[in-house]
Amino acid sequence: VSGWDPRAVIAAKRDGRVLAAEDLERFVGAVATGEVGDGPAAAFLMAAFLRGLDASETLAMTRAMIASGETVSFPGLTVPTVDKHSTGGVADGVTLALAPLAAAMGLAVAKLSGRGLGHTGGTLDKLESIPGLRTDLTTQEIERQVEAVGCAVAAQSSAVVPADGVLYALRDATATVPSVPLIAASVMSKKLAVATDLILLDVKAGSGAFMKTTEDAVALAEACLTLARGARRPCGVAVTDMSQPLGDAIGNALDVAEAVHLLGGRHRGRLRALVVFLAARAAEHLGGESFESATALAERALDDGTALERFGAMVAAQGGDRRVVDDPASVLPSAPIVRPITATTAGTLAAVDAEMLGVASGALGAGRVRKGDPIDPAVGLVLEAKIGDALDPSLVVGTIHARTEDDADGALLRVRSALTITGASVDPPPLVQAWLAPEGE
Amino acid sequence: VSGWDPRAVIAAKRDGRVLAAEDLERFVGAVATGEVGDGPAAAFLMAAFLRGLDASETLAMTRAMIASGETVSFPGLTVPTVDKHSTGGVADGVTLALAPLAAAMGLAVAKLSGRGLGHTGGTLDKLESIPGLRTDLTTQEIERQVEAVGCAVAAQSSAVVPADGVLYALRDATATVPSVPLIAASVMSKKLAVATDLILLDVKAGSGAFMKTTEDAVALAEACLTLARGARRPCGVAVTDMSQPLGDAIGNALDVAEAVHLLGGRHRGRLRALVVFLAARAAEHLGGESFESATALAERALDDGTALERFGAMVAAQGGDRRVVDDPASVLPSAPIVRPITATTAGTLAAVDAEMLGVASGALGAGRVRKGDPIDPAVGLVLEAKIGDALDPSLVVGTIHARTEDDADGALLRVRSALTITGASVDPPPLVQAWLAPEGE
Repeated sequence: VSGWDPRAVIAAKRDGRVLAAEDLERFVGAVATGEVGDGPAAAFLMAAFLRGLDASETLAMTRAMIASGETVSFPGLTVPTVDKHSTGGVADGVTLALAPLAAAMGLAVAKLSGRGLGHTGGTLDKLESIPGLRTDLTTQEIERQVEAVGCAVAAQSSAVVPADGVLYALRDATATVPSVPLIAASVMSKKLAVATDLILLDVKAGSGAFMKTTEDAVALAEACLTLARGARRPCGVAVTDMSQPLGDAIGNALDVAEAVHLLGGRHRGRLRALVVFLAARAAEHLGGESFESATALAERALDDGTALERFGAMVAAQGGDRRVVDDPASVLPSAPIVRPITATTAGTLAAVDAEMLGVASGALGAGRVRKGDPIDPAVGLVLEAKIGDALDPSLVVGTIHARTEDDADGALLRVRSALTITGASVDPPPLVQAWLAPEGE
Repeated sequence: VSGWDPRAVIAAKRDGRVLAAEDLERFVGAVATGEVGDGPAAAFLMAAFLRGLDASETLAMTRAMIASGETVSFPGLTVPTVDKHSTGGVADGVTLALAPLAAAMGLAVAKLSGRGLGHTGGTLDKLESIPGLRTDLTTQEIERQVEAVGCAVAAQSSAVVPADGVLYALRDATATVPSVPLIAASVMSKKLAVATDLILLDVKAGSGAFMKTTEDAVALAEACLTLARGARRPCGVAVTDMSQPLGDAIGNALDVAEAVHLLGGRHRGRLRALVVFLAARAAEHLGGESFESATALAERALDDGTALERFGAMVAAQGGDRRVVDDPASVLPSAPIVRPITATTAGTLAAVDAEMLGVASGALGAGRVRKGDPIDPAVGLVLEAKIGDALDPSLVVGTIHARTEDDADGALLRVRSALTITGASVDPPPLVQAWLAPEGE
């Protein structure tokens, strides 16, 4: 229609006015098609960043983003299905373990993942360190696999919410990433575009996450939940600690090995605690269990081998080498240099700069700076020490996995600079800081 | 230099921090060359719009814009030279009359003009309605002409402040035009890039201008003056009324005819008053006259024919038909339809919607919507009535100059809708609302 002027939408947001849903949907739709160019789109994003978007505006934006592409559904599934998303942190290997654990508990997980940028690879990259494993599954393949095995972790098609790719690239280039409504619209558009029975979100809070404080993380959690309610989709959101790495492994093959240990009941740290928490919350909502009995069920599935068995079945269904569950070291790629990590002084671990550990792992080759960059699946680091632990220079608290001795030297310097050690005693930070239950619970 | 990240500049302004001059200059320079694209540039503009730029930032931005292209100087000139700029209004034919008047008073005017978009043509378009007249003069031609004739009005080369073209197009597309520091940087970069002895600015205030209130106009005037001081260049700024059209003519050839009448002493309205004011201020600063004696000198030059003689000499020097000063009607293009303007009711003219009059003239063909559009030099309108005048349906208060009867019908409706007539008496608004003198006066 001639006479429509995108500048009126920009000017209204610039002046702090609330936009009508139809104006916002039209603007975002035009950005997705390229009808509205980078300049006006970026001006809108900055105005939205500074003036904010209210709940109705954020929902309209999310709807417009979903409408920019295809949606996905699995009409043939007979099991209640969970999708899961984390806002991103360091050593956040939850998905690799949660999907088979939930499957072992009689739920189904259809997890569609983006291939983000980061210090380490994303979930897809981690899985692909298993020789032969494919993540480019069709919707039909995902549906068949979830029905048969109980879980699938696959690449989200770029035909789903293409607007997010356009907007995210622009936000990244224009310093408009850390905005609660813009993050919520980005996260939830991709989840709402896939028809599942429950969306589980894990919003990270702390120095290693986008949201540095619990307060900010809860605001993002609430914005996401509001979007789910607006779309009449059940959604539960956990706000969890990212003041230190969640698990121990920061890499790709190293994360798979950690997931195998966890699923076999041999890892008992914070990562296991969070995986159990989320699986139990899913069973509480979808299976009608109490949270307590669902927790016991989850613990049992990890300790009796059924969760690990589901992981093997998923790996095999996606073309990977199933022996990874029995002997990860013989199947996964490994780095030539393994350097022990020790602290330089004795004391209590008071703080961990998770971001710096990510940088250390990235410098070893575990991540990518630009889309399409290759990653090295074998390298990275493992740090077992957590806040509150006693350290001593004679104690090995982890390992660096590197291509060269020089790389290992650099990583050790970075890891040591990431550790703050004090003489006082320090309490570990609480793991789950908030749980926003699905509607009606 | 690798490692420079334009996002750091955007984020700092987004967060309301004051930018270092070198960061801002680098960013604006990179926008001008295209190294920084539309998206980041637009995000910066919106952040600057909403967070503001202080005096030091505005000066750094202005310097970077000047550094994006060539500068102009006239080393051969032996007379003190004035440049003049108006922030734009309706029936603002000041330049056409001011340049020859100042020349007749022994000053020199080198006026470089852009070819803007607007309801009517700009100064260049108006002048080019004189058959044969050229405005694409080289710097050397301008210098020779100013030395010989005392004035030249020519097109500003696109090699001067190319950043302004880039930024203005982006501001226009992103609803970031009406920002005091961004307007000041745009105006002053183009004036400071040309070495003259005095910059005269005419900042318009009122319904027909960008700045709707005197307060806003004074803020823009002060921002421009601060930039001139920062560049150590003498500059005087008048804030003048644009609550109604300044002169009577709103077109192109019609404006030239009005200038000829004014320069010959036959027009005695507000346009003459402002032209005399500005010429006297220039003579006060450059010639050491008192403002009162300079005013008397200006009045005399209009009434004794010397100002009109200078206009003829300028027209001839630029290749135009000099007979325009003796018989404008026979030289200038004219429209086939001339329709008298009358009011529909009797009363006092209380308000004039200058913007609507501009739209009426634009609809007749006097302006352009897109760069490069042709304009019709003959069409437009003349409205002699000013706020406070008594109107009556029997009184002809102006004329519409149109290509067709239909066009004239439409223009008459628009003109009548632009006039607010009351029963009460109304005082005319003051013409010069503020005068910010050059440093040291």
